[in-house]
This record gives sequence, structure tokens and C-alpha cells, in this order.
Amino acid sequence: MNIGILGTGSIARTMAAEFTKVPAFRCEAVCSRQQATGEALAQQFGIPKVYTDYDTMLADPDIELVYIATPNSLHYAQTKAALLAGKNVLCEKPFVPAVAEADELIALAKEKHLFLFEAITTAHHPNYALAKQYLDDIGSLRIVSCTFCQYSSRYDALLSGQVPPVFDPACCGGALMDLNLYNVHFVVGLFGEPMRVSYHPNLYRNGIDTSGILLLEYPDFLCQCTGAKDCAAPGSVQLIGDAGRILIEPGSSNCQKLRLVRPGQEDLCSEYSESPWFYEVAEIAMILALKDYDACYAALKKTRQVVTVLEAAREDAQLGF
Amino acid sequence: MNIGILGTGSIARTMAAEFTKVPAFRCEAVCSRQQATGEALAQQFGIPKVYTDYDTMLADPDIELVYIATPNSLHYAQTKAALLAGKNVLCEKPFVPAVAEADELIALAKEKHLFLFEAITTAHHPNYALAKQYLDDIGSLRIVSCTFCQYSSRYDALLSGQVPPVFDPACCGGALMDLNLYNVHFVVGLFGEPMRVSYHPNLYRNGIDTSGILLLEYPDFLCQCTGAKDCAAPGSVQLIGDAGRILIEPGSSNCQKLRLVRPGQEDLCSEYSESPWFYEVAEIAMILALKDYDACYAALKKTRQVVTVLEAAREDAQLGF
Repeated sequence: MNIGILGTGSIARTMAAEFTKVPAFRCEAVCSRQQATGEALAQQFGIPKVYTDYDTMLADPDIELVYIATPNSLHYAQTKAALLAGKNVLCEKPFVPAVAEADELIALAKEKHLFLFEAITTAHHPNYALAKQYLDDIGSLRIVSCTFCQYSSRYDALLSGQVPPVFDPACCGGALMDLNLYNVHFVVGLFGEPMRVSYHPNLYRNGIDTSGILLLEYPDFLCQCTGAKDCAAPGSVQLIGDAGRILIEPGSSNCQKLRLVRPGQEDLCSEYSESPWFYEVAEIAMILALKDYDACYAALKKTRQVVTVLEAAREDAQLGF
Repeated sequence: MNIGILGTGSIARTMAAEFTKVPAFRCEAVCSRQQATGEALAQQFGIPKVYTDYDTMLADPDIELVYIATPNSLHYAQTKAALLAGKNVLCEKPFVPAVAEADELIALAKEKHLFLFEAITTAHHPNYALAKQYLDDIGSLRIVSCTFCQYSSRYDALLSGQVPPVFDPACCGGALMDLNLYNVHFVVGLFGEPMRVSYHPNLYRNGIDTSGILLLEYPDFLCQCTGAKDCAAPGSVQLIGDAGRILIEPGSSNCQKLRLVRPGQEDLCSEYSESPWFYEVAEIAMILALKDYDACYAALKKTRQVVTVLEAAREDAQLGF
């Protein structure tokens, strides 16, 4: 399947490298407002075409799937344009900020019988499936605790008076929409929507959440998700039940190592060494190869639940975006 | 100083053993409603007198300090009676459920120029002082994360239809008042009262919180405290700043191991091997020896702040006790 990449940032480069590992994908074009950055990416990964206009790329009949790797606030319009142009879409996380937008895009994809994916590593990792499978072994779940605290390379810029997109409310940035989103995908992917959502952010003076704690309350257990771009700590997901626990490291964006611990029993451990994007790209390639629309739309249903939780969290914290 | 021990449960035995390690203390009497359990404790620790009536023990002029190790709901009346009888008091944690009760007892102690202590390990550990000292080294604090999840030996009894005092609302039991209280002491001891308190409990059908997540919001950082008696996980306290972090294991009730981690610098580590009660008993002995009422009343001020937070948490979660 021929891919047109929109955007040339760090994640675009990461994914371009991953696409080359999967024979089913071929990077046909890259689109960047600046010719030079587009050409740099094209050269690095042997991509034949460079566009500086998105509509022109969308008009290219050779492009079958558009991979969107632009700032969060552009995802909605760019995904919609691609779908309207008859292209399948892989849109970077976070999908879109509002449930209404998600609903519109999902309906459009279904109407046009196109594939639409949110590019999120979490759900595709083999250890995520294993966590699901082991849930029965830890008894009644009581506490879920997710930590993803990574000092952002742009945080110093923010403190020095600049406003990089990842810390710009107008770009739908912040710790919730960026890192804590992985925690939400992890939890909502396993358990669906919670009964109650509350978000407690550390706010910078421009109104962005540089870090925060999200509380998700389920009928039978509680979940806290900590996400931070202003400080660093080892990440993890812990699912704690009354008969054992599952520990995942380094956390919800990369379930590299999973450990099942039950008192009086030997620990079970599962470790994978591939990059988290490998499993994502490989699984999406498989879904496309099998024309498995059901799998695609089931994933979108989860994405919609995640968007719902994030919207509720921003409303609770009155994050005005 | 001659001690009269009230109660013969597990913590009474632990503390009786600790008292014998400190030359300044001498266990003079034990008081238990049942003569047999009182005698068993007296025999084990070479305690000369056994009382079955509390007022009789309070009338004993040889007793200078009463150590109260009874169910939580009895602390207020028993502490008050001891103070009125002119005895110094060491009252097990949690001190008392209500701020009004705390205020009354603290005022009474001051009025009668008596020592009054809440018996809580947290504040007395050398690594707690070290954590305070290292705070400057981790930059601006952003996230505090405390976990204390210990499967209670009485949880199975609760599930089988009994109501042990530790899970009885009438006895002021539950995970907040028992284990999460250590987290609150840790945090409030360092930072004082938070701006906002919210408590999210897992409730059993008798209304007791078998576990829960407490959110403490400070002007510049956020804190989550997880406490559980219905599941088990390794405990810890993490203080995460924008320039480093402090990790304390196994957590807020015993700061045995402390690690200061700063990017690009060697980790600092401090480890102690004594029981957490040793430091508590030794420090209280020192305060008594020095007749340091200021230190005692400063600790009571912290205790009052903790009671305030716990009362607010129970109110927030509508825990009807």
C-alpha cells in the first residue's frame, strides 16, 4: 500500500523507518510546507515524491493511505480532507480533541468504506494482549496505577518564554493529550469508559497542563494515571488485584516487559525487544491486507471512548480547549 | 519513664518490644479487659502489673505515660481520660477522627502541661529528615506519588461476612485511616495542608473503604496517595521535581531506603536497618528526657493538619464516619 506522509517531525521520521520494515508498505510521497524538510525526509528514506501542498498530494492517485504526523490541532481537518479525497488514513495520536469530530470522521470513513486508524502503539503490543489474558489471574481488580513522566525537550523553551506546539493550548498540546493519553488508551482499551473522570493538572501560566493526575473511577476499581512533561520518573502500569498483580514497564506506550506476580506462585515474565511502533505498523499492515474493516472500526470505537474520556478530563479541569 | 500499656494487640506487642530497647522507658503495667491476654503480654515482656480496668491503671501513681493501642474509635475518650488523670500520653495512629476532638485533646495537654504524642513512625525516620533536606536538589516539585497497598490479614474475614474492627466504620477503620494515613503524614509533614482534598475509595457493602486514591492539590504540585488493604503491591514514595527525584522504599511508614536521582549525577542512597518503630520510640524518649514541649506541640500541629486532611477526605467521599 502506497503511503503519503504528511509532516516531517520526529514521529514522521520514526514511522518512515518503521514503514520500510514492512513489505506491504511503500512510502510514495512526503508532504511538507517547506520543500527542504520534505526533501530531507524523502532522501533519508528513499521516498520518490515531495509535495509542499497537501491537496496536491491528496490528488495523487498513487497514494492509497495518508499518514498524518502534524500538530494535534490539525488532525481533524487533514483527516477529513484525506477521507473526502478517498484515501485511507493513519492519523497520529491524539486522534482529534472532540467527540463530535471523532464521530464525524468515523462516520465518514464508514460511509466511504475507507480505513481510518489512530496511530497509537499501546493496543498493538503483544504484552498488551497478554495483560488482558492475565487479568483473570489477579482476582478482583482494585487499583490501576499508570505513570508516564518524561521531561520534554521543549520544556526549557516554554520556561524561557517560547510556546512550542506541544505546550500550546491552541495546538491542543499538554501532558494529558500527549503522554497521559497513552495511559488512557491502555486503561480504556481494557475496561471501556469509566463511570467518572476527574483531571488535576499542574498548569503553566499560558493555561497548558505541563503535568497532571487523571482519576478514572470504575464500578469495581479505581485508576490513577499520572502524565508529566515537566519532570521525569521511571514509567509503569500496575494492575493490582486481590489475588495478584500485573506490572508493565516502561509503561503504557511501550509494554516491553510484563510481569505477573501472585503470592506463593512463580512470577511469569514476558519481554519483547522490537520498537513499540513495529507492532503497530505490522498490525495495521495485516488489517489492511485482510481488508478487516471490523478490526479497524472496533479500534475506532476504542479511540472514540478515549476521546470521550479526554474531553471529560479537559472539561473537569476547565482546560479551555 | 514508667509506661502503662492499654491494649494487647499486635502493635502493643511490637511497641512493648521497642520500649525495652530504650533505657529511658520502663513498662510498668498493661491494661486489658481480659486478664489472660494482659497477663500473656506482661509475662512476655516482664511487665510487673496487669490491670483489667482502665480507670484503675490511671489511678496508679507509678504510671507516668499511657500508651494507647486500642481500636481507633476509642482513642479520643481514652486519651482524654489519661490527660485528665495527669498522665502523659502516646496514642497510636490514627490520632482521633475529628479536628474538634484533636483540638480539645491538644488544648487539654497544653493546659495540663503534659506530653501528648501520636505514635506514627513516619516523621521519626532519619531518611524522612534526609528527604526534607534533599528537596532543594530536585528543582521545582511537580508530582508526589505514594503507594501503600498491603493485603490485610482480616480482609478474608470481611469477605466471609464478619466485620473486623479494621474494616468497621463504627471503629473508624478502613484503608484511609489505617495505611493511607502514613502517606498523608509523609506529605503533610513536609508540605503542610493542601489547597484541595479529594478521596476516591473502593467501598465494601458495609460502607468501609477497603482501598482508595487520595488526591492532594498544592499550589505548585500534585500528590496522589494510594492506600489499599484489599490488594498488595510494592510500596514507595516518589517526590518528582523538574531537576530530579527522590525515591523512598518501602514507603511512607518505613523510609528504610532513600535514593536521590538527578540526571547526569551520581545517585545518592541512604539505607537504615532498624525497625521503623525504633526511631519513633527513641525520638519520643529524647523529647521526654529533654522536656522539649515545643517539639511535642510542633508534632501535634502536624497531627492536627493530618486529621484535617483525613476529615476532609472522608467528607469528600461521604464516608459517614
